[in-house]
Amino acid sequence: MYNQADLKNLVDKAIVNLSYNREAERLIDPIKYVLSIGGKRLRPVLALLACNLFNDKIDEAVMPAAGLEVFHNFTLVHDDIIDNAPMRRNFPTVHSKWNTSQAILSGDVMVFIANDCFLQGPPRYMIKVFREFNKAAIEVCIGQQLDIDFEKALIVSQGEYLRMIELKTAVLLAASVKIGAIIGGAEEKESDYLYEFGRNLGLAFQIQDDLLDSYGDIKLFGKVPGGDIAANKKTFLSVKAFELSKGTEFKRLQDLFSGEESDPERKVSSVMEIYDKLNIKMLTENLANEYIEKSFSMLEKVDVARERKQELTSAASSLIGRVR
Amino acid sequence: MYNQADLKNLVDKAIVNLSYNREAERLIDPIKYVLSIGGKRLRPVLALLACNLFNDKIDEAVMPAAGLEVFHNFTLVHDDIIDNAPMRRNFPTVHSKWNTSQAILSGDVMVFIANDCFLQGPPRYMIKVFREFNKAAIEVCIGQQLDIDFEKALIVSQGEYLRMIELKTAVLLAASVKIGAIIGGAEEKESDYLYEFGRNLGLAFQIQDDLLDSYGDIKLFGKVPGGDIAANKKTFLSVKAFELSKGTEFKRLQDLFSGEESDPERKVSSVMEIYDKLNIKMLTENLANEYIEKSFSMLEKVDVARERKQELTSAASSLIGRVR
Repeated sequence: MYNQADLKNLVDKAIVNLSYNREAERLIDPIKYVLSIGGKRLRPVLALLACNLFNDKIDEAVMPAAGLEVFHNFTLVHDDIIDNAPMRRNFPTVHSKWNTSQAILSGDVMVFIANDCFLQGPPRYMIKVFREFNKAAIEVCIGQQLDIDFEKALIVSQGEYLRMIELKTAVLLAASVKIGAIIGGAEEKESDYLYEFGRNLGLAFQIQDDLLDSYGDIKLFGKVPGGDIAANKKTFLSVKAFELSKGTEFKRLQDLFSGEESDPERKVSSVMEIYDKLNIKMLTENLANEYIEKSFSMLEKVDVARERKQELTSAASSLIGRVR
Repeated sequence: MYNQADLKNLVDKAIVNLSYNREAERLIDPIKYVLSIGGKRLRPVLALLACNLFNDKIDEAVMPAAGLEVFHNFTLVHDDIIDNAPMRRNFPTVHSKWNTSQAILSGDVMVFIANDCFLQGPPRYMIKVFREFNKAAIEVCIGQQLDIDFEKALIVSQGEYLRMIELKTAVLLAASVKIGAIIGGAEEKESDYLYEFGRNLGLAFQIQDDLLDSYGDIKLFGKVPGGDIAANKKTFLSVKAFELSKGTEFKRLQDLFSGEESDPERKVSSVMEIYDKLNIKMLTENLANEYIEKSFSMLEKVDVARERKQELTSAASSLIGRVR
C-alpha cells in the first residue's frame, strides 16, 4: 500500500519527466511553469489511491493520473484568461506573465499532452478510461460555461448552482477515482461507487470552499474573509440567501450585489448580517455534511478490506477538513 | 468506390448529427455555427478516400474523419483569436461574433468533441489512430507557435519556414490520409507512403497558396493580390526574397517589410518588383512542383490497383490545381 506522500512524489516525478517536442520552446515554457507551481496533485493522487484499493501495482495508472493533472492545469490556464485573474497560487497567471495568445496556445497543447498521457496507459483499459476522462472534460467545460452565464444572471437557483459546481469541480474528482479504480481492475459496480464517492466529495469540498470564503478563520484560511461577496461572486451562500430572503431583505441583497454599497468592508458586513439572520452558515454546513456522509457511505460500499481504504479515507478527510 | 461528393455528404451528415450535451447552449452555439460554415471538408474527405483505397466499407472511418474536421475547426477558432481576424470564409469569426472568452471555451470543448469522434472509431485501431491524431495535433500547435514567433522575427530561413508550414498545415493532411488508411486495414508500409503523400501535398498546397496571394488572378482568386505583402506576412516568397537579395536590395526589402512605405499599393508593387527581379515566382513554382511530384510518387508506391487510386488522385489534383 502506498501513502499519499509516496503517490504525490510519483506524480511529481512523472510530471517533471514528461517528454515534450522541443521545437518551439516558447510553447512549452508556460506549461513547465504552470506544472511546476504544483499544488496538491489532488486528482492524480486520488486516482492512484483508488487504483491501489484494488491492486498493489499502480505503475500502469501513473501516466493517466498525470494526464488528469495536466488537464486540470489546462483548465486553470484558460479559466484565468476568461476570469481575467492576475494571480494563481501566489504566482502570476500564464496570460499575465506571457500574454493571452500564449496562454491560449500553450493551454491548447496541454490538452494533447494530457491525451498523450492517457495513450500511455494500459491498452486493455484504454477506451474505457479515455471515455471516462473525455466525458468529464466536456462536463468541466460546460460547468465553466454555466459559471460564466451565472455571473451575469441576477438569480440562480440552488439546483442550478449545485449542478454548476458538480460539473465544474466534482465530476473531475469523480472521474479521477473512477479511472484509478478501472486501471486497478475494479468491477464496474465498485468503480461506479467510487465515482459517486468522488462526486459527493467534490460537491462537499466546493460548498465548504464557499463557506470558508465568508466564514473562514483569517489565520487558518490565509486571506481576509468576504472576497467572494466583494466580487459579487455567486456562491452557495449567496444563492441560498437570495432563495430564503423576502421583501425588503431580498431587495437589500439585490442592491448590495449590484454594487450599491461602494465600500467593500461595509458591503461584506451588510451581506454577512443578512447571511447570519437567514442562518446561512448552518444551512451550508448541513448541506456539506450531507454530501460528506453520502461520499463516505459510497466508499463503505466498495467491496475491499477496510484497512485498504484507510489512505483514501484519510486523503478525503483532510480535503474536507475532517478527522476520520 | 465512393466519389468525393458522396464522401463530403457523409461527412456533412456526420457533423450535423454530432450529439452534444445541451446543458449550456451558449457553449454549443458557436460550435454549430463554425461547423456549419463548412468549407471543403478536405481532411475528412481525404481520410475517407484513403480508407476506401483498401476497403469498400468505410463506415468505421466516418466518425474519426469527422473528428479531424472538428479538430481543424478548433484550430481555426483559436488561431483567429490569436491573429485578431474578424472574418473567416466570409463570415464573422467566433470571437468577433461572440467574444474572446466564448471563443476560447467553445474552442476548448471542440477538442473533446474531436476526441469523442475518435473514441467512436473501431476499437481494434483505436490506439494507433489516436496516437497518430494526437501527434499531429501537438505538431499543429507547434506550427502555430512558430508562425507567431516568425511574425516578430526579421529574417526566417527557407528551412525554418518550410518546417513551420509542414507543422501548421501539412502534418494534419498527412495524418488524415494515414488514419483513413489504417482504418481501411492498410499495412504499415502503405499507410506510411500515404502519410508522405499527404505531407508533400500539404507543403505544395501551402506554397501555392503563398504564390496565389501575390500572383493569383483576381478573377479566379477572388481577392486583390498582395494581401500577405501588405500585412508583412512571412510567406515562402518573402523568405526566399530575403535569402536571395543582397546589399541595397536586401535593405530595401527590410524597409518595405518594416512598414516604411505607408501606401499599401505602392508597397505591394515595390515588393513585387523585387520578387520579379529575383525570379521568385518561378522558384516558388519549382519548389511546389517538386513537392507535387514527390507526393504523387508516394501515392504510386501504394500497392493498390491504379483505378482504386483515381478518386484520391483527382482530389489531390484539384487541391493543387492540376489535371491528372
